[in-house]
Amino acid sequence: MEAPTVYLDHAATTPMTDVAVEAMTARLREVGNASSLHASGRRARRIVEESRETVAQALNCRPGEVVFTSGGTEADNLAVKGLFWSRRDADPVRTRVLASAVEHHAVLDPLEWLDEHEAAAVVLVPVDGMGRLRVDALAETIERDPRTVAMLTVMWANNEVGTLQPIDEVVALAHQHGIPVHTDAVQAIGSVPVDFAASGVDALSVSGHKVGGPQGVGALVVRREVDLTALLHGGGQERDVRSGTLDVPAIAGFAAAVEIAVKQQADLAARLVVLRDRLIAGVRHAVPDVVLNGDPVERLPGNVHLGFPGCEGDSLLMLLDARGIECSTGSACSAGVPQPSHVLLAMGRDAADARSSLRFSLGHTSTEADVDAVVAAIAPCVERARAARA
Amino acid sequence: MEAPTVYLDHAATTPMTDVAVEAMTARLREVGNASSLHASGRRARRIVEESRETVAQALNCRPGEVVFTSGGTEADNLAVKGLFWSRRDADPVRTRVLASAVEHHAVLDPLEWLDEHEAAAVVLVPVDGMGRLRVDALAETIERDPRTVAMLTVMWANNEVGTLQPIDEVVALAHQHGIPVHTDAVQAIGSVPVDFAASGVDALSVSGHKVGGPQGVGALVVRREVDLTALLHGGGQERDVRSGTLDVPAIAGFAAAVEIAVKQQADLAARLVVLRDRLIAGVRHAVPDVVLNGDPVERLPGNVHLGFPGCEGDSLLMLLDARGIECSTGSACSAGVPQPSHVLLAMGRDAADARSSLRFSLGHTSTEADVDAVVAAIAPCVERARAARA
Repeated sequence: MEAPTVYLDHAATTPMTDVAVEAMTARLREVGNASSLHASGRRARRIVEESRETVAQALNCRPGEVVFTSGGTEADNLAVKGLFWSRRDADPVRTRVLASAVEHHAVLDPLEWLDEHEAAAVVLVPVDGMGRLRVDALAETIERDPRTVAMLTVMWANNEVGTLQPIDEVVALAHQHGIPVHTDAVQAIGSVPVDFAASGVDALSVSGHKVGGPQGVGALVVRREVDLTALLHGGGQERDVRSGTLDVPAIAGFAAAVEIAVKQQADLAARLVVLRDRLIAGVRHAVPDVVLNGDPVERLPGNVHLGFPGCEGDSLLMLLDARGIECSTGSACSAGVPQPSHVLLAMGRDAADARSSLRFSLGHTSTEADVDAVVAAIAPCVERARAARA
Repeated sequence: MEAPTVYLDHAATTPMTDVAVEAMTARLREVGNASSLHASGRRARRIVEESRETVAQALNCRPGEVVFTSGGTEADNLAVKGLFWSRRDADPVRTRVLASAVEHHAVLDPLEWLDEHEAAAVVLVPVDGMGRLRVDALAETIERDPRTVAMLTVMWANNEVGTLQPIDEVVALAHQHGIPVHTDAVQAIGSVPVDFAASGVDALSVSGHKVGGPQGVGALVVRREVDLTALLHGGGQERDVRSGTLDVPAIAGFAAAVEIAVKQQADLAARLVVLRDRLIAGVRHAVPDVVLNGDPVERLPGNVHLGFPGCEGDSLLMLLDARGIECSTGSACSAGVPQPSHVLLAMGRDAADARSSLRFSLGHTSTEADVDAVVAAIAPCVERARAARA
């Protein structure tokens, strides 16, 4: 008899919540282009605008600040390239773009492209051994020549090791010099409190499928005062910042998911912290030399990122998978590419260390039984992974 | 008692077919990031790759040539900007981009941006009075200096007036000079036969929600030999041309829709041509001075684009809408913006003419009763619209 799957990869994608599935499927059989003027079009438009208000209320921004996108990657690309272009176009001296060294590839790769293709000067600001941005280094980098900084991007919480970033300090520093701040909050929404207006950030990325909504939808929240060059041009939807027919069912599902994720955030976090700490303690008992990566306290409640000295993370992942336990060696988006995590390298680990890690990420469907399954399986899997390597 | 809605705006968006709804909803409750290495990830990946094969078979391309996107607008932006950048980067002399003057805004607006922001020289090639590209003018434009042409984009069929474009001639001409050709086939798939390999085009855009699939998904089919600069950078999905977590349920729904749309294309076209001609004849009988825009023969089977002299299209649209008949004044994507259609202007009409038009677009749910409802309603509506203007 096959055991049920133990899904501990919620940071890669999390199951849709019932309300999101229902909100979405309710719309799949309704026809309507939200840009059409007739009754079906107006009905579609109403769903979009109600969804926009729901998202705005959950994240504490104005409805007009929500720009729907096809997901977190598009939101990040739009923020990074859009802010760079508009700020540099307004003043050609602004060529520098600053980012933490541990950003997601959806931020790092657009930066690399801007550097190579658009003559931007990208500066990756170092992090400490916990993966937390060194604010002193950021200050120094900015103050070297504040006028030349086009924009700054620092994630709210790291997707691999779960460390929360000092967004308040980043914003305070940047705004002294009038520099706009983007934050990739894809992993943060629904996990920790996120208040757009209170945070002071100028732009913030959200992804649907990381918060119990559908894949293929997300949003960039952008302050209305901020100019942004569009990435997708066309029909002029989303105040001309993001063209393309609005995906009405997905937007309805996304809004429902964001609403409930934010409403239940505190309860879920309280529950996940207990499971997380049970998982860490249990694995530590089974594999005494395991290393917890990232900040032990200032981290996402559902994130357990562990180093297993002498193991290849990929082998360990496969051995656990064979026992029905699903986790990740890092960001799913770079999975399949056998290279050490840039996050762990930035934290000062060597390549072997960086390849010996596993991320277990808990979410709204996680149970004690899931945790106990990992604790029971981990020692024999680590033993086999070490043997395979010896 | 309210009459059922007569939906004649299938070119803006068409209801999802049952197979597409079923394929999509079957996947909404399955968790899995197609980039994850574990069993759930591999299952998601399998769905994506099977969908890719389905789309490839329907359009006659290789599976590796299908790049999934968030829809037609993204596919067009990726093709136009991606081809321009890669071709100009390879040879800086290639700054010209040629397009028909009647392209959709999802092509025209990226071109305008390339012109203003990226120092491209965009040339819009004229069309004849039917909205058909003047191949002689295209030849002349190319031959003025073939080396400087980065790329060329001509839609398969016009979204407003329905005229089919001479893609074969365009490809033959462009390829004499090694110039890559993109075509926006968003309105063509499922309406007329489209064979990617046989057409010889280098890139072709498809949209999900125009063929009975979900909104928020589409594809750019690109020949493997063609280099394309990415628009969305990140996890490296879709052979590094389009990053972002793959939207598994939408891709499954999209593939199911494309498959059945292509399979049923000939039958649907045969049925729609009868309805279309019944609609044209009926309206002509009721409003004798009505003008049929676009090519009377070489047009999309479901397209009826009519000029009503002395009427504002917008008023007419609202009067019909009040009777439960839904149509459009042109492209839904520019609806709400009260400007005359660039397509009709390019066809040589004046602004008043261009504002006096309505598009009725038929699709897979259209019936004789829909047509007869328009025929019954049109004369009194036109009369009122004319009175309102007098």
